[in-house]
Amino acid sequence: MAGDQVTLLDFWASPFGMRVRIALAEKGVKYEYSEQDLRNKSALLLQMNPVHKKIPVLVHNGKPVCESLIIVQYIDEVWKDKAPLLPSDPYQRAQSRFWADFVDKKIYDLSRKIWTTKGEDLEAAKKDFIDCLKLLEGELGDKPYFGGETIGYVDIAFVPFYVWFHAYETVGNFKVEAECPKLIAYCKRCLQKESVSKSLQDPQKVYDFVVMLRKNFGIE
Amino acid sequence: MAGDQVTLLDFWASPFGMRVRIALAEKGVKYEYSEQDLRNKSALLLQMNPVHKKIPVLVHNGKPVCESLIIVQYIDEVWKDKAPLLPSDPYQRAQSRFWADFVDKKIYDLSRKIWTTKGEDLEAAKKDFIDCLKLLEGELGDKPYFGGETIGYVDIAFVPFYVWFHAYETVGNFKVEAECPKLIAYCKRCLQKESVSKSLQDPQKVYDFVVMLRKNFGIE
Repeated sequence: MAGDQVTLLDFWASPFGMRVRIALAEKGVKYEYSEQDLRNKSALLLQMNPVHKKIPVLVHNGKPVCESLIIVQYIDEVWKDKAPLLPSDPYQRAQSRFWADFVDKKIYDLSRKIWTTKGEDLEAAKKDFIDCLKLLEGELGDKPYFGGETIGYVDIAFVPFYVWFHAYETVGNFKVEAECPKLIAYCKRCLQKESVSKSLQDPQKVYDFVVMLRKNFGIE
Repeated sequence: MAGDQVTLLDFWASPFGMRVRIALAEKGVKYEYSEQDLRNKSALLLQMNPVHKKIPVLVHNGKPVCESLIIVQYIDEVWKDKAPLLPSDPYQRAQSRFWADFVDKKIYDLSRKIWTTKGEDLEAAKKDFIDCLKLLEGELGDKPYFGGETIGYVDIAFVPFYVWFHAYETVGNFKVEAECPKLIAYCKRCLQKESVSKSLQDPQKVYDFVVMLRKNFGIE
């Protein structure tokens, strides 16, 4: 919609922020990117997300929308004439919401455990993480994307975590591809799309960031 | 839709199951209620929700939908001609999703801490719980329901927890009404609706259940 003012309050390494960037790119929405300092939160961030005080926040014509999956659904509903992200059939919509929610409930927590724990806890997190990725790989099946022939809601929810895999693998001393080769092939396929590649970050830069976080947290 | 086969796999005390019961009642959908034994999960539950193995599950013409808020949205999208639960405006929809998600992320975890912890942890949980309820009370404002003049998505997400308040208050030795009188008045208003009253459970029965759980968990 011409004349729309769209600003994204974000942090470069956030997989949740990357979701919103991919959705905006898929829809061809022009926006201002506003990098936030999460150690010294801006008055704007606190004003726009007073409840959770977290990025990403999409500010559309002055009004904030918070929580990444809610933002992606909002983008899909507002810019509805191009690149539909959720299917139109209610049952397929529910299935898409289920798997995006699965990514939120399982993948994020488990991946965080991989780079914040050691010993038995790390080994358990790695096993659970791979088990969850195998469930996702099964759901993907032989489709090019979770969304079918085009990128959709579940792809947008999941693929940002791929650029964190290098960090998880290096810290945890394992390889996702050895266990889930089809899922990795799928992630590489997603990265061939400009909407994805321009929205994600360099895995090496993410790894350096994780190393710094682990030092700050006293893990290494 | 005539001829629909609708079954709800549920557990009587679950606030998540109560959400689905209210949504089905608001829409006037006839369904078979199937009480599940959560200590000895049925083959049907494991087949219908192999990922999370949890209730509630809505089985519609043989196909399962899982996760309560996803089920409520599914019900709203399938039976769309009666009692809309989500607003039609994308921004208002995003706001409704935000507050329902807030209930999931905050109210459930904090309320669980109230009946599973003691001492300082219990006091901290009570304070955080009341702070979250005050945020909800502020969002409600002077409206009769979160949904405005009629019950909607946020009401359905939140009000089932009200019948657990008696248990939280008795175990935690506090009164929500002393801190959030408008929110309690709102809960009582919701209970005047048949769709709510017939879907919720007796607070005393829920309290007895919590007492039994605490004994089983070795908390008392």
